[in-house]
Amino acid sequence: MVTPHEPKQDRSRATRQRLLEATIDCLAEFGWAAATVAVVAERAGVSRGAAQHHFPTREDLITAALEYMFDVRNGQATEEAASLAATSGVARTEAVVSGLVESYTSPLFKAALQVWTHAAADPALSQRIVPLEAKFGRVSHRRAVEALGVDDSDPVAHHLVQATLDLARGLGLADVLTDDSVRRKLIVQQWAATLHTALHG
Amino acid sequence: MVTPHEPKQDRSRATRQRLLEATIDCLAEFGWAAATVAVVAERAGVSRGAAQHHFPTREDLITAALEYMFDVRNGQATEEAASLAATSGVARTEAVVSGLVESYTSPLFKAALQVWTHAAADPALSQRIVPLEAKFGRVSHRRAVEALGVDDSDPVAHHLVQATLDLARGLGLADVLTDDSVRRKLIVQQWAATLHTALHG
Repeated sequence: MVTPHEPKQDRSRATRQRLLEATIDCLAEFGWAAATVAVVAERAGVSRGAAQHHFPTREDLITAALEYMFDVRNGQATEEAASLAATSGVARTEAVVSGLVESYTSPLFKAALQVWTHAAADPALSQRIVPLEAKFGRVSHRRAVEALGVDDSDPVAHHLVQATLDLARGLGLADVLTDDSVRRKLIVQQWAATLHTALHG
Repeated sequence: MVTPHEPKQDRSRATRQRLLEATIDCLAEFGWAAATVAVVAERAGVSRGAAQHHFPTREDLITAALEYMFDVRNGQATEEAASLAATSGVARTEAVVSGLVESYTSPLFKAALQVWTHAAADPALSQRIVPLEAKFGRVSHRRAVEALGVDDSDPVAHHLVQATLDLARGLGLADVLTDDSVRRKLIVQQWAATLHTALHG
């Protein structure tokens, strides 16, 4: 059912997505100071007026970009979960931990880090992103529980899955200034082995 | 042996320390943008000229503040180590993990996070702080090994101590926008129990 309005809506949606992707690129590459509506619009090849139509304030742009990052990450996690179907035992645990940890070294994490760190000293922005963070944390936890095949009502399993997400965040932060991949790989292997023993005996 | 030069040197040293402490306060409370030589000098009650005598550039000030944070943290860690003397077994492991993790929720961590995150998009600053970070990482690792009483030449122990430091960093980041202390306490307890079993059987 094509209506005359759809092409215009499609264009508007594509413009919005270009702006959000440019925001993530600007944050990850050039940091917080570069992620203004004007700089992002230029990078996205969108007029400043069109950008301001979508995102009247910088906070609107940043908040929408954070939501977009979470959607992209959720899509990646769905693909990772599908690729786990053939694995089992400690190999599966290691694949789950590795997938999680690597997601925290992506440009998405580096962009989100810029937002979190700025929001630490900006109560108005913080108030807008805390509910998004809480929702993302719940979804990430549920996905990790499912991927690891554990019973989340068991407090040991619940807290070790939480710890694994916190470890992933810490390893992400350790990768911001230097390439930490060699050290990280060894830590993921050891964590996965220790976690597997603790979860499955 | 008091010489006529000492009082002036003492005053200079005290001024330097006031500037570094004001830098940490500014970073932790108001974020990167507020941590300029001018703003820090005003907060420290030091003239801008005197501040620029100690720290000609913002990068000099920030780098010196990061070194000062590491010194303060090392002093705290020495005190924590002394307070462990009476503990043993899993209680000691939990005290070590808890002390480490709590250190990553302090204003020092929040100030350092502002520097790391800004440096991610500032190669000149990054180049200056990466060697400091590497040294701090080595010292923190060695201290944790000693406090836990493990053999660092055992790869399992080595990587689990590293993972504990990464977990602590991740828990620190989770505390930046909201008070995460209730959740964190449960994770520290569980990880200490799992770590103790993995290290000591």
